[in-house]
Amino acid sequence: MKIRIYNARVLAMDGDFKVTEGELHTENERIIYVGEGLADISEGGFDREIDAKGNLILPGFKNAHTHSGMTFLRSYADDLPLMDWLNNQVFPMEAKLTGAAVYWFSKLAFMEYLTSGITADFDMYFYQEDMARASVETGFRTVMTSGMSNFMSSVSEQREDYIKFNDYHPLISYKLGFHAEYTNSVGNLEGIAKLADEFKAPVFTHNSETAGEVRGCIERYGKTPTALMESLGLFEYGGGGYHCVHMSDEDIDIFKRRGLTMVTNPGSNMKLASGTPGISEFLKAGVRVALGTDGPASNNCLDMFREMFLVTGLAKLRERKASAVPAEEVLKMACVNGAICMGLKDCDCLRAGKLADLIMLDLNKPNMQPINNIVRNIVYSGSKQNVIMTMINGKILYENGRFDIGEEPERIYKEVNARVAMMKG
Amino acid sequence: MKIRIYNARVLAMDGDFKVTEGELHTENERIIYVGEGLADISEGGFDREIDAKGNLILPGFKNAHTHSGMTFLRSYADDLPLMDWLNNQVFPMEAKLTGAAVYWFSKLAFMEYLTSGITADFDMYFYQEDMARASVETGFRTVMTSGMSNFMSSVSEQREDYIKFNDYHPLISYKLGFHAEYTNSVGNLEGIAKLADEFKAPVFTHNSETAGEVRGCIERYGKTPTALMESLGLFEYGGGGYHCVHMSDEDIDIFKRRGLTMVTNPGSNMKLASGTPGISEFLKAGVRVALGTDGPASNNCLDMFREMFLVTGLAKLRERKASAVPAEEVLKMACVNGAICMGLKDCDCLRAGKLADLIMLDLNKPNMQPINNIVRNIVYSGSKQNVIMTMINGKILYENGRFDIGEEPERIYKEVNARVAMMKG
Repeated sequence: MKIRIYNARVLAMDGDFKVTEGELHTENERIIYVGEGLADISEGGFDREIDAKGNLILPGFKNAHTHSGMTFLRSYADDLPLMDWLNNQVFPMEAKLTGAAVYWFSKLAFMEYLTSGITADFDMYFYQEDMARASVETGFRTVMTSGMSNFMSSVSEQREDYIKFNDYHPLISYKLGFHAEYTNSVGNLEGIAKLADEFKAPVFTHNSETAGEVRGCIERYGKTPTALMESLGLFEYGGGGYHCVHMSDEDIDIFKRRGLTMVTNPGSNMKLASGTPGISEFLKAGVRVALGTDGPASNNCLDMFREMFLVTGLAKLRERKASAVPAEEVLKMACVNGAICMGLKDCDCLRAGKLADLIMLDLNKPNMQPINNIVRNIVYSGSKQNVIMTMINGKILYENGRFDIGEEPERIYKEVNARVAMMKG
Repeated sequence: MKIRIYNARVLAMDGDFKVTEGELHTENERIIYVGEGLADISEGGFDREIDAKGNLILPGFKNAHTHSGMTFLRSYADDLPLMDWLNNQVFPMEAKLTGAAVYWFSKLAFMEYLTSGITADFDMYFYQEDMARASVETGFRTVMTSGMSNFMSSVSEQREDYIKFNDYHPLISYKLGFHAEYTNSVGNLEGIAKLADEFKAPVFTHNSETAGEVRGCIERYGKTPTALMESLGLFEYGGGGYHCVHMSDEDIDIFKRRGLTMVTNPGSNMKLASGTPGISEFLKAGVRVALGTDGPASNNCLDMFREMFLVTGLAKLRERKASAVPAEEVLKMACVNGAICMGLKDCDCLRAGKLADLIMLDLNKPNMQPINNIVRNIVYSGSKQNVIMTMINGKILYENGRFDIGEEPERIYKEVNARVAMMKG
């Protein structure tokens, strides 16, 4: 399959934020050409030629922290205190989950990702085989990690999963991980450190999401979660933390030294009233920051445009400084840093040889006009409404509002609603 | 013109948040029927019958604080300290404005409002005759107010405008107002108080947007802006304030006693790092809260879905309470409270006899599924992408991505970009 996209504005994100006018070609899952102006197409052989009409192509957004299977809880229990929400709403419903349910609920999440220009997710949830199958069948790229805790999974199971899912399908990969410090014994964490050592692999987890979580860890171990994990040797090969809202200077320093990624989830942190991290402090220290939506039970929408506006807006508010976290930094978080964090080294920018994970944004919409500055337009005024194409691994999965994901949207909605009704009943 | 919308979910916002299944009819500018199930249409005579396919109709959003003509500054100067932004970027560009420019820039804003389900704006800007003409030609409903200051307009000019624009066109009305306390002499404010008395009319202004503004007023007069305005008799007939970020208990009490509307602008307050108002305190005191996007130079997008999420998200963060400002309160702000604030008493809900200012939201999009709770879906996961119809005064101006506004979008983009280029050059 060879595709030509011409007459496009191209924001390649290849080391700078330059927007050029030109074209891009793909062959099967790879980008084979990116260049300014009109290309020499005398060799031809394109299966499809797309006139971009001056619209913008750029690398897809990477959603670096998700619980995709949780779509069934969207708008199910909002506006509740955190513990009430978890104990009386989320956990009882999750107890009723099945693999088949996670399969359909994940497909719904992939659809929403596609409408928001998201080309990969970094997912932690149950029934990972079903999730992986849903991802492959949809054509979506998923990096999975373990949600291991004292109540769920084990070191040996994770070892098997690591081997299995890293050899499952080109769209699927797997990173070592665990739910959080406060849900795992030291024995568990030591076991994962051994796996990290065995596979020379990075480790990811929820980290310092709430002030209470940090307090609890200090009471238990006399250390912050980050310092505890570091002392247990979990970060010998890198990794990262989701949320990282309540972090000390020492924690940030550990992130810097170990090359860890701070994955921020501003929408979820707002909605659950968890707090606002000091993004500028991470950036100043040279820590890589990536962006994630978290799950639909806490956010509730899976929209990187919302997260992009929030990460800078909340930083501006926190620092009382309108110049905090400029738009370019934000777009880099969404397109590039997420890819690096997730180990998707060929999905970070538009360049010949890279994987064709890219999106097209409609600039001929009022929110994108006038064109004073395209990067700022995306970060400060962009919307799902602007996403007119999402391509993953060289295949167009979403175009002008229509999905090509091997399943009718109506079927997915129907399956999801029927299963939710059953679980409620 | 008679239109029938059937097979719809109807969220009438008529005193509750009930969603029924039924239909709605309009004749010219009015709603003539709202009811459950299928209506008796034996009399017929519809010019158009629309199968809503189970999608949702509800009253349009009212954007209760705008500077529509400022679209030309979108993404022109972001990530700058506030005073640098104003003095070195905004003011020099505004000095080059013409009436014709405001006409085109306003049309661009109306287009964006339509894509976000906004059916009326409450606008303060220059060249109001051009703005009003653009609004009428587009078919958009605008309530104007004066941006009077020591440098712009006067009490006598505002008196003329009040009379002229309240008798201009059914889509246009005019409220007394001024830019802010810190840009007006006491003499100006006294003059407006006299106008309020003459017309028995409410008064609107920017109020307590920044901490510095409040500090300055206390230094000058020994009173907060709200207390000063109250002491000058500006609120004898009600009115309201835009922003109201830094308000004392006494200020909130004045708002309550006078029946004033607090118009919050969370996107703008974030982006300019102005702060977060205590929304729950206003609500607890029984003060009406409405929502506005502010202008595109400071927000930058004109999207009520963003503002709806932010008003509750920021309140949750500020109060460290995930249950703060529930979704129902937010939707009421956007649909109903804005209408009351703006004097649009017939645009608040869907009921026979009311004006036909309404929108249709596509529930068959992944971000609206599953349907656990429609109000929460709108507030927490809603997006411009869900807006498939915007009707104002009985006329459908936006439907399935297409505009019917008497002008091709491309023409508007072209005019706007050409004028921006000229102003920059």
